Amino acid sequence: MATDGALSAFVPGHVTVFFAPCRRDEPARTGSVGAGLTLDDGVSVAVEPADRTVVTLNGEPIEMEPVDRVLSNLGVPSHVSTTTSLALGAGFGVSGAVTLGAAVTANHVTGGLRSENALVRAAHEAEVQSDTGLGDVVAQARGGLPIRLKPGAPPHGALDGIPASARIEYVAFGGLSTSEVITGDTDELVSAGERALSDLRERPTLARLFELGRRFAREAGLFTPRVEEAVGAVQAAGGEATMAMLGETVVALGTGLTDAGYDAAACQTHPSGVRLNLP
Amino acid sequence: MATDGALSAFVPGHVTVFFAPCRRDEPARTGSVGAGLTLDDGVSVAVEPADRTVVTLNGEPIEMEPVDRVLSNLGVPSHVSTTTSLALGAGFGVSGAVTLGAAVTANHVTGGLRSENALVRAAHEAEVQSDTGLGDVVAQARGGLPIRLKPGAPPHGALDGIPASARIEYVAFGGLSTSEVITGDTDELVSAGERALSDLRERPTLARLFELGRRFAREAGLFTPRVEEAVGAVQAAGGEATMAMLGETVVALGTGLTDAGYDAAACQTHPSGVRLNLP
Repeated sequence: MATDGALSAFVPGHVTVFFAPCRRDEPARTGSVGAGLTLDDGVSVAVEPADRTVVTLNGEPIEMEPVDRVLSNLGVPSHVSTTTSLALGAGFGVSGAVTLGAAVTANHVTGGLRSENALVRAAHEAEVQSDTGLGDVVAQARGGLPIRLKPGAPPHGALDGIPASARIEYVAFGGLSTSEVITGDTDELVSAGERALSDLRERPTLARLFELGRRFAREAGLFTPRVEEAVGAVQAAGGEATMAMLGETVVALGTGLTDAGYDAAACQTHPSGVRLNLP
Repeated sequence: MATDGALSAFVPGHVTVFFAPCRRDEPARTGSVGAGLTLDDGVSVAVEPADRTVVTLNGEPIEMEPVDRVLSNLGVPSHVSTTTSLALGAGFGVSGAVTLGAAVTANHVTGGLRSENALVRAAHEAEVQSDTGLGDVVAQARGGLPIRLKPGAPPHGALDGIPASARIEYVAFGGLSTSEVITGDTDELVSAGERALSDLRERPTLARLFELGRRFAREAGLFTPRVEEAVGAVQAAGGEATMAMLGETVVALGTGLTDAGYDAAACQTHPSGVRLNLP
């Protein structure tokens, strides 16, 4: 997985089910409220200090602005070698995973002078400043089924969780631009997301999360035809499914997509956040 | 492990390395600051609703006041069947683990109407009201190497972490009463604990955690002769060791106790907090 001899971290994938963006002057106070699922299909991130930052994804060079930013802010330009089975830009939080994994691993390589909160904050700020994400990093630092109660990184943000774990299936039809949705007119999105959060807090269960995700996608006008069709097919087969924010991706509980006749990938929710691999 | 057919949770062990108790009127605001290690040697907790709460530990009936309390507060009296290789009253947070595991599992059995934060809070309050612990529950809900920045349960407490993982060895010589130490005169303890926290935040590394633990134990007058001897022997052999708060227990990094000639148990730090076992 990792480059030979390089230190590495594993970061879970993260699917946001609903959200409301929240912009402030400071990047650490900017973020989103909402809820989602962390997945044990994630990203392995290996780091070796280098003259300048170069990122590879499954062996291919790739531009990842937030990774450049966070390693520059930490003062550790590096060769960042990442492997994942998750699609980029399809709502799995790959960008946040690489950014957070690079920060945690680079910190360790250079003597470990920052705390976990400081590293989460640095990665979150880099994502916000690059317009690549608003909530993945704090969720991927926590693991489980994160509820984002207050936006932003530590010490500003606040999280809770749904006390459950589950098998999750997913199908990615294609990408959607996070940056276009979260920088455009967001009034509808914000009110739909805040309503969903309030309703989830009344009854924080997995079934309710999926139900509120569908309502949010509909109210915010984010369903695409093939996502809506697949979600409907899973429900018709007696299952629970919703859309990943933001990708043309459907996630389902248990065997929901398979039962509806889709060729789906399967994983489990992930019990923990980012972790360094033991040497 | 668990009773056949009962739902179960795993809760990591937790060793506090240093702490400062902090009492307020509300149990949810009462707690401790400090730092420690969660361990993958933990407690498996299975729950079946019953007419009244009965707790067994490795098959033997046992009185655990905070478990009675939390299940009474949640309205789910249960048969709680727990298994662990950890010694009770020796500084591994067994009482907090059973209380938190019972809360999370009982919630699931009854439809899962509470969030993770609400369950952590209920378990923390039960420990505080029973004088059995001030910081284990919030650490065991988080996992990793928790730093308790602000005392209390969500939403009052605040946590950070040391971004590391390690093999840990331990030897338990005997028990110390948590309740006697945390309800007695605590001025020395508080100032030593707060100083250690401040110094750890300057440099949040594993080696520093152990160094500050030794300083805290010495300043707070908590070392017993055989603990001090074992810690000294590990250091003389080139290792890192300190005392578990509160037990007559020594924890060491890596193979520290074995290298010093002790017959020690070994485990790893645990990446996550309490989790329900998948059915």
